[in-house]
Amino acid sequence: MPDKDAAFVKEITPRSEDFSRWYTDVIRRAELADYSPVKGSMVIRPYGYAMWELMQQALDRRIKATGHVNAYFPMFIPEGLLKKEAAHVEGFAPQVAWVTHGGDEKLEERLVVRPTSEAIIGTMYSKWIQSWRDLPVLINQWANVVRWEKVTRLFLRTTEFLWQEGHTVHETEEEAQAETLKMLGVYKDFCETELAMPVLEGRKTESEKFAGADKTYSIEALMGDGRALQAGTSHNLGQNFAKVFDITFQGRDKTVQHGWQTSWGMTTRLIGGVIMTHGDDSGLILPPRIAPHQVVIVPIPRGDWRETVLPHAERIRDELEARGVRVMLDDREEHSPGWKYAEWEMRGVPLRLEIGPRDIRNEQVMLVRRDTRDKTPTPMDGLAGRIEELLGTVQQALFDRAVAFRDEHTVRTADRAEFDEILEGRPGYVIAPWCGDAGCEARIKTATQATIRNLPLEPPPASGNCIQCGKPGQVDACFAKSY
Amino acid sequence: MPDKDAAFVKEITPRSEDFSRWYTDVIRRAELADYSPVKGSMVIRPYGYAMWELMQQALDRRIKATGHVNAYFPMFIPEGLLKKEAAHVEGFAPQVAWVTHGGDEKLEERLVVRPTSEAIIGTMYSKWIQSWRDLPVLINQWANVVRWEKVTRLFLRTTEFLWQEGHTVHETEEEAQAETLKMLGVYKDFCETELAMPVLEGRKTESEKFAGADKTYSIEALMGDGRALQAGTSHNLGQNFAKVFDITFQGRDKTVQHGWQTSWGMTTRLIGGVIMTHGDDSGLILPPRIAPHQVVIVPIPRGDWRETVLPHAERIRDELEARGVRVMLDDREEHSPGWKYAEWEMRGVPLRLEIGPRDIRNEQVMLVRRDTRDKTPTPMDGLAGRIEELLGTVQQALFDRAVAFRDEHTVRTADRAEFDEILEGRPGYVIAPWCGDAGCEARIKTATQATIRNLPLEPPPASGNCIQCGKPGQVDACFAKSY
Repeated sequence: MPDKDAAFVKEITPRSEDFSRWYTDVIRRAELADYSPVKGSMVIRPYGYAMWELMQQALDRRIKATGHVNAYFPMFIPEGLLKKEAAHVEGFAPQVAWVTHGGDEKLEERLVVRPTSEAIIGTMYSKWIQSWRDLPVLINQWANVVRWEKVTRLFLRTTEFLWQEGHTVHETEEEAQAETLKMLGVYKDFCETELAMPVLEGRKTESEKFAGADKTYSIEALMGDGRALQAGTSHNLGQNFAKVFDITFQGRDKTVQHGWQTSWGMTTRLIGGVIMTHGDDSGLILPPRIAPHQVVIVPIPRGDWRETVLPHAERIRDELEARGVRVMLDDREEHSPGWKYAEWEMRGVPLRLEIGPRDIRNEQVMLVRRDTRDKTPTPMDGLAGRIEELLGTVQQALFDRAVAFRDEHTVRTADRAEFDEILEGRPGYVIAPWCGDAGCEARIKTATQATIRNLPLEPPPASGNCIQCGKPGQVDACFAKSY
Repeated sequence: MPDKDAAFVKEITPRSEDFSRWYTDVIRRAELADYSPVKGSMVIRPYGYAMWELMQQALDRRIKATGHVNAYFPMFIPEGLLKKEAAHVEGFAPQVAWVTHGGDEKLEERLVVRPTSEAIIGTMYSKWIQSWRDLPVLINQWANVVRWEKVTRLFLRTTEFLWQEGHTVHETEEEAQAETLKMLGVYKDFCETELAMPVLEGRKTESEKFAGADKTYSIEALMGDGRALQAGTSHNLGQNFAKVFDITFQGRDKTVQHGWQTSWGMTTRLIGGVIMTHGDDSGLILPPRIAPHQVVIVPIPRGDWRETVLPHAERIRDELEARGVRVMLDDREEHSPGWKYAEWEMRGVPLRLEIGPRDIRNEQVMLVRRDTRDKTPTPMDGLAGRIEELLGTVQQALFDRAVAFRDEHTVRTADRAEFDEILEGRPGYVIAPWCGDAGCEARIKTATQATIRNLPLEPPPASGNCIQCGKPGQVDACFAKSY
């Protein structure tokens, strides 16, 4: 029903007018996701799930290339296991779903639906690991997890979400730390290469670290409205879980030692990150590497176009497909070319290929970039190669644009008045000196809503006194309002 | 710790002695899976999960090639939704897990953890489908599901398991029926081509059909102990769910009509099927197409083998990997070649490649097939091609052997005394006439433990009178004891 659809395309709230409504409009109109009858849970629709599949493949490849293997652990965790690690249960108990009955019977022990799997995986590792020869254990899991959320938002914060969680055990503290940072690096490379989303890597403060970890590292991305999104975390768990779950091994020196662990995760919220990093008033802009359709071909329906134009369009499609380009030929009769242009722009397809009778006479097609809207008549001869090249150009241009945006929205100050003024008037990162005290961090949050996103991995000396208490600064921290 | 490991390899109960213990021993010693601290739930370990990943890829490719797309729906289903379809809730309510609390709060409405997703997906389809132009909807989901089981068995019957579930909506009854049978055919092709597991396709009886379906079709495989395993099901749901979930569309004739639906699923139990179809007293035998390692290279550690033999082994590995063969080079110092042979045989690797100093002098290697144990000296020249060929041969040989086994264990009879005698003494399929009455079916089950696995898709006239009541037979049914 063209009319209803056409209205749909127009119905997106402009991004500049209301970022939050724009975000939800785009997701629903582009059919990435939908609300479900289950409070706080969303449906990932085929177009959104196709993005997730491409992201999974690209990340899974990196996880395996760094020596990890996949496995699957039970989703249910007995209450007693979750409670073993004190900080862990304190962090997660308020937001877990409780299973109390199986069939008609009340369970002897309640089960939680995993909010994360340290407890169940740690229990298995304690069975599997006996000797230093069994180490390192490098296992990853792709799974659904549940965290009961009061306020939810499509992709960014939902009761159930999809993720991968890596869980490793090492012989030494140094190895665990190296693994923690290695995976942070893998995440950064994945985000920047595949999602064209520049990230800032760093260490979380004590108050922001994972419940049960020694150290938490994160990568943070800056969204189009100037808020930060935590895009991935990597935790050095030390021996905390190893001690409570009894993960011990006989060392090279024959003594019994506790393993050193890490865990790290990335989730479907990254889809939200992609939308908010690249999109514009017309809708989505997808980086070619994770676009379900990288090219849409729109034939111009003049005269007997099914006999004249369509065969050319099909030949181009086949040639692109043979090269591994993901291409969609939109030959629907019920929609005009103009409608199709708007539709596929809204859905973020990186390149549009228009082809009509005149193009065929001129042995060319029109290529239109989604990101810049540049239109370039392009010869049929060598077309597929040119398209592949252009997809690479678009991918890089999106990254460069996001880097430029981030740089424009990063300000350094050691002056509190300026700090407050920036955070009120102009969203983005503010880099400012901090004394290292959690109280100061909390007071800044209360006053400005901004939190410390992370601290540099190898911080130079602070550039001044703490922005809150005026005592000597310990480190320049990156502050921002965040999702 | 080599000694412990060596004992492990020997500790498998012979298959001929106790099939059930053999099955569990193989799974645990080959590290395919393990018991978990959660009653009825299992852990799929990396080696087992690698099999599942290969199976997923092969099945997902077929699902997409037939026009389906993937999506993801919430795992939680509100009680009220599950209860909408009467037969459905009656079938599943006794075996669902109930979530009653989120965080500290009691939920207003209890949630079930999906045992299958017709209810939640039907609810979404009712929102998404308005016109005949929106049809067909062809969506598949890869997910975990939970069915509370009293008696569980690794891979075959666990509280939580992994599967894919397809859910489609069509304009007409004929299209839905065609889809139901198409996916049954996809399943059959997948099992026979990838798992080398011959299957018998057919229609389930009324008493064995899916709760809420009009018709259920299945593929059945015969395990090494002569019991049948239901390997996949495809359901024609008619308009049953469409009516209760209000899935309507405006037809080509402008009238409002209910959609025609199908659903179909395959699960991780297929891993159990592979084990029980092909394994022997020494452990697993994996079909090459789903073997995590298709070839294991065992260098013979004589003299300065790290300088002389290992480089050749590495070159062979690299060449095989470049061709896409999954190869493992076992150069561990702490184990003898003999130990490695037993270990990788137990883990079912289809081909072993032995290479020592003498082989290198002779410009050859020794290839050993897991299925037949045939040893063939093979020239280095053209080795990779020869290995690829041999992997194809092994795949086919496993299928042929399983077909022969099934044929040997299929008997036709119209005589009840013979029927009982066969089912007692000799496991396998028994094809016998049945009148079509559910009472007869139930009485046969009580008397013999055998159930009707399925009925032929296009049955010829029955070959005699009902094996139970003696009245005229309606169809020759396939009976067997089953998992």
